Order: sequence, then structure tokens, then C-alpha cells
Amino acid sequence: MKEIPGGVCAVRGVCAHGIKEGKNGLALITGDGVSAGVFTKNKVVAAPLIITRMHLAEHRLYAVVANSGCANALTGTRGLADATRTAEMVAGRFGVPADLIGVASTGVIGVHLDMGWIENRVDSVIAGLSDTPEGSAAAAQAIMTTDTTQKEFAVELTSGVRIGGITKGSGMIRPNMATMLAFIYTDADLPHETLDSCLKRAVNRSFNMIVVDGDTSTNDMVLLTATAKSGAGASDRNEFQEGLDHVCTELAKMIARDGEGAEKLIEARVTGAETEEDARMAAKAIVQSPLVKTAVHGNDPNWGRVIAAVGYSGADINPDNVSLALCGVSVMDCGRAVDGADVDMSGENIMIAVDLGLGAGKAVAWGCDLTCEYVRINAEYTS
Amino acid sequence: MKEIPGGVCAVRGVCAHGIKEGKNGLALITGDGVSAGVFTKNKVVAAPLIITRMHLAEHRLYAVVANSGCANALTGTRGLADATRTAEMVAGRFGVPADLIGVASTGVIGVHLDMGWIENRVDSVIAGLSDTPEGSAAAAQAIMTTDTTQKEFAVELTSGVRIGGITKGSGMIRPNMATMLAFIYTDADLPHETLDSCLKRAVNRSFNMIVVDGDTSTNDMVLLTATAKSGAGASDRNEFQEGLDHVCTELAKMIARDGEGAEKLIEARVTGAETEEDARMAAKAIVQSPLVKTAVHGNDPNWGRVIAAVGYSGADINPDNVSLALCGVSVMDCGRAVDGADVDMSGENIMIAVDLGLGAGKAVAWGCDLTCEYVRINAEYTS
Repeated sequence: MKEIPGGVCAVRGVCAHGIKEGKNGLALITGDGVSAGVFTKNKVVAAPLIITRMHLAEHRLYAVVANSGCANALTGTRGLADATRTAEMVAGRFGVPADLIGVASTGVIGVHLDMGWIENRVDSVIAGLSDTPEGSAAAAQAIMTTDTTQKEFAVELTSGVRIGGITKGSGMIRPNMATMLAFIYTDADLPHETLDSCLKRAVNRSFNMIVVDGDTSTNDMVLLTATAKSGAGASDRNEFQEGLDHVCTELAKMIARDGEGAEKLIEARVTGAETEEDARMAAKAIVQSPLVKTAVHGNDPNWGRVIAAVGYSGADINPDNVSLALCGVSVMDCGRAVDGADVDMSGENIMIAVDLGLGAGKAVAWGCDLTCEYVRINAEYTS
Repeated sequence: MKEIPGGVCAVRGVCAHGIKEGKNGLALITGDGVSAGVFTKNKVVAAPLIITRMHLAEHRLYAVVANSGCANALTGTRGLADATRTAEMVAGRFGVPADLIGVASTGVIGVHLDMGWIENRVDSVIAGLSDTPEGSAAAAQAIMTTDTTQKEFAVELTSGVRIGGITKGSGMIRPNMATMLAFIYTDADLPHETLDSCLKRAVNRSFNMIVVDGDTSTNDMVLLTATAKSGAGASDRNEFQEGLDHVCTELAKMIARDGEGAEKLIEARVTGAETEEDARMAAKAIVQSPLVKTAVHGNDPNWGRVIAAVGYSGADINPDNVSLALCGVSVMDCGRAVDGADVDMSGENIMIAVDLGLGAGKAVAWGCDLTCEYVRINAEYTS
């Protein structure tokens, strides 16, 4: 497996484009194929998710259209009509049924889509569709909200199969998805059942293991479409899973690193848990703790806060068995503080490794530091 | 029931004093009687809690000694010995067994108590013991860490029974206790079983319903002691419960209002939930959401964030039944945004009222806004 440029457009059969004007953006990705999706677990579900879930009933998408600036959430029947109309507009241009179009939105909750703005830009977005890296980049930029960087990643597997994706964060990120959109394409040739189970596994170990602020959005969506155009014939499931895990993990880390106001990436690795679920709870509690996040921001090796977070995470622990290393330096060994540990927390990547000393369960979670900039961004968002 | 001055010293049979020198403080409260306690649910439990839980085996305390500046948590067998030694020092001065002394600590995790500092100050704290309001105030000040105000409250019930308490916050506060100490006294005459169940109920509706940052500390403790000195004979349980609920709620709101860096108190009232537990989850999710907290900080009536928090809280909801008022102004009515709602969020007390429209479950939770000052305080805490 090797990293390649081009984002979604690295995948054979995929074109993309997008435009961004102030807070509003419109992105379009075409790539006909078998599709699977994962959606927010928030009980308040935005209109585009309801429509896209319906459209996925036949496990196939022709294109995905996504807007930024307005979440089209808590918008009632008018919101559903607007999401449907957006799909119909795109479908009409391509002469395909509307239920082959996925629709996604990200932005402010509780306001209606500006359908005139979207309608006036659909043709120019379609005219700009391209299978070059520039196409993917334009789409990745168009879905950004408070993201500071566009987020794309692609790999080519040994078999020649390619997997590429774009994503956006960057607040409201937490376990079980976030204001987080990811559109992933592959030219692998795989049946829906395989795509679906591979996607669930990959999301569970990547997007579901990042935390920015602990809020879960109404609009989270990850879509995976397989164009079957790699030319390599039927694809190997294990190789594909490994590649998809890698793409999802790299995209997820980009989101965590670019969390609102973030200056540092925190990686929490938990080993020795009784179960994998315990390890997941402990790792997520660490990267979600405001006290850990502020300590990291202040370059403060305040390991007591890490242990306290593990203690309330719900994971089974025995304090006498717990060992902890910060940035590679052991600070706690089987429940005892290591005297004279000298930890340098000034870097941009902070590794927190906890061994619970109980079993074989392990997990990794990613987060970011908590800064004044986060507060500033979110205190001013709608005003 | 009426509010009276004097904090713990409003209660007959109680004396208190405390001293504060920089980050270190030592408080002592004497009041012999039947006692009950509630402790952190964090699986990492600080040494003083282990010792105090043991000392409560006979359901009686003669005095409580509490230090600030060092949590005596994750300090191993030396930590247990230090907590025991602190109790012995106090017990020796009064000629009572050490297991009649409650011990509490708050401050930095992972460092040892400065036993010399404590030993050198025990006699002067005892010499200063007083049954006046000044005694309670000195004790309340001595247990402060990043608190900006001392926290005391007392009431006199119709029967003449008095209940008074002191508490401290102010980070690491969340459901199921926090770096939160509360020492509550009453001169009621009640058996241990009644005290214990009344305390659990009161804590569940007060201290367990406040959130500052979602972290749960290793050191949380609420102790209740009844001196039976009211002169009113055996006390009425219902009247006592009502009084205790009120004292605990007022103390809890003081903590939320004085959350680290906080400028505003948020009160989330949820009604119409299917169950009380659903209402509790929804109310706590609102006051814990960083996006709600930052919106309140920015005077931004961003009600979509409130609904999103309710949606991921775990409570059963039907978006079409949900109504929401911010500061008394209806912004959402049975799932529909109210046009032209004009909400003034500039006050210091922000009321969020959610009616889920499903059942009779209700709950109230309290929190505070999230500010740059919170980040600054916690990025610099140990350095």
C-alpha cells in the first residue's frame, strides 16, 4: 500500500468539483457504483440524512452533492423538500433518477437552505467537474466550515486498487460521528455486503475514535462508493479492509488535528484492557477530557488528569496495575509515580500511552488541545 | 423554611476554622454526631476518601479536617499513611479515636501531602475554632482552590431545626460528583439510615446535576453530620429532606456559577420526558455541551445546539414534540422554529427550558459558560 495524491479523484471513474463563496459552498462528486453509508446516532437527524438513507435503499449512488453553510437540520417538511429538490436538480442534469444522488449538508442548524443560491450554482459546478487532483481539492474546499485545511487522502493497494476520500470537521466531533462529512471512493469491485461491513469496521476504528469537543452532530455522514473500475477484477476483501482502515484513520486524524482552535494532535493508545470496549472507553475519555486537553495546550505533563479520566471512563481498572507514558517517557509504572520523569510536551503531536495491565484489549483515539480560539470560534459562530 | 447566615456554624453544636496560605489551606469543622457520606464514582479514589469511608463504618464523626492544594490522589501506601496521620493528629488533640475524624483533600493529583506544613498548623486551626459565622467563613475559604468565592448556605426549618453547609468547586465538576467537597451539618435528631437516604436523594438532585467541564474527580466527597442539638426532639423526615434538598441545591448552584472561568449560570429544565432518567440525561447533556456553553458565553441564542445536545443525550425524543424556550422566550414549538423570536442572552442567569412532550419525567441541571479564562486556568494549573 502506498500513499498517492489526488484525493477522491485518484480513484478511477470519479470526478469532482466545488465552489466556495464566503460561508456557503457547494461540492459535487460523480462516481457511479455500489454504495454504503454510516450516519449520525443523534436522535435529531438532519433532512439530507433522511433523504440519503432512503436513496441508499438500492445500494447505489451516481453522485453526491454537499453544501456547507447550512445544516438543513430541524427544518421540518420544508427541509426534506429542499434536500429532495437538491437531489432532483443534480439528477436532472445527468438524466438519472433522483434516488441515485446522495445529499449532505453542514453548517448552522435550524435555518433553511438558500435554494436559489444552490440552483444558480449547480451548472457551474457540473461544468467544472474534473478527474484531476484539482477537482478533489475544489470539492474538499467547498465542504469546509470552520476547518482551516482541506482534507484529502488516497492510497493505491498492491493489487492496483485505489481508495481515496475527502472529509471535513471540525467542531462537534466525538465518538459516533460529528459535524463530519466524509466521501470515500474506491475502484475496487466488491459487493454491497462487503463494502458495508468494511465501512462499519473502518469507521468504528477511525472517525468514531476522534473527539474535538464531545458534541455529536445531527448531520454526520460517511459514504463509500465502489466504481469497480480498477481493472484488477474482483478485489480481495482483506487487502481492501486494510486500505480502507488506513484511509479512514488518516482522514480522521486530519479532523482531530484541525479541531476548532486546535494547535496539537493528541493520540491516546490504551493497551492491557480487559476488553476492546474498555480500551475504547478509556482512550476516548482521555482525548475528551477538558482538563487533559487544556494541560496539553499548556505543555503541562499533568498525568494525574489522564489517570483520573481513565478512572471515570467506565473501563475496568485496577490503579495498582496502571502504567502511563507521556511522549515516550514513563511517568507511572504499575500505579507508582516515576521519580524525576522529564517529559517534553512542547511538540505538536502528543502521545499518551496507557497500559491497564489487565488483559489484551487495546484501542487508539485521537483528539486535540482545548484553546481560547475554540471558545472564540464557537461564541461567535452564528453572529 | 428560611435562609439564615452562618454556614455550618449556624448549626447548634458546630465550630469551624481554617487558614489559607497561598495554594495551601487547612480547614477543621467539629460537630459530634451521626454521619453519612457520598463519594466519587471515579474508579481511581484518593487516599482521604478510602480512609474516611473506613472511618464512617460506625456512622459517626467528631470532626472533619480538609486540606487544599494537594489531592493526595495516586499517592499509594504513603498517601494512605498521610491521610491516616492527619486524622490521628486531629484526634490526638481532642482525645478521641482517629476513626471519628473525616479527612478530605483537594488540589493537584499525584503529589504527596506536605505533612510538616499540616502538622505546624493544626494547633492554630484548633485554637481558632469558633461557632460564629466567621468560623464557617474561614473554613469555607480554606478549602477553596480555583474557586473565586467562598460557598456557604444555611436554613432554619419551621420546627427550628437548622441545616448548614460549606462547599468548594470548581473545575472537574460533572454528574456523579467532581473535585467537589461539601460538609453539611444539621442539629436535627435523626437515625443514620434516614440521614443516609436523605443525603443520597439530595445529592442526586443537586451536586449530581451540575456540570462545569465533564471531568469527574478522584476526590469528591459530601459528608453530612447530625448533632441532634436543635432542642426540638426527634425530627420530621419530610421536613428535613426538603431542607436538605434546598441547602444542597443552593450550594450546587454556587459551584456551577463559580465554575472555572465562568461568567454565567446556565439552568436547564427538562419536562415532558418519558422517564425521570431521560430528563436527567437530557438536562445534563445541555449544560455539558461545549457548543451550548460557548454559545451562552457569546450571548448567542443558538437553540439548534441545545436540540442537538438533547438528541445525543440518550433520552428518548421525538423531534416533532420538542418545544424550547430560551430565557423565557419560545424559540421552538412542537418541532417548529418560532419566527421572529427575540431572545436576550445578555444576562448572567440563562434559563433553558425544554419540553419533550412525551411524558411526566422532569429534571433540572446547572452549568456555566465556557470561556478563555477556563482554558487559561487549566493550561497553567500545575506550572
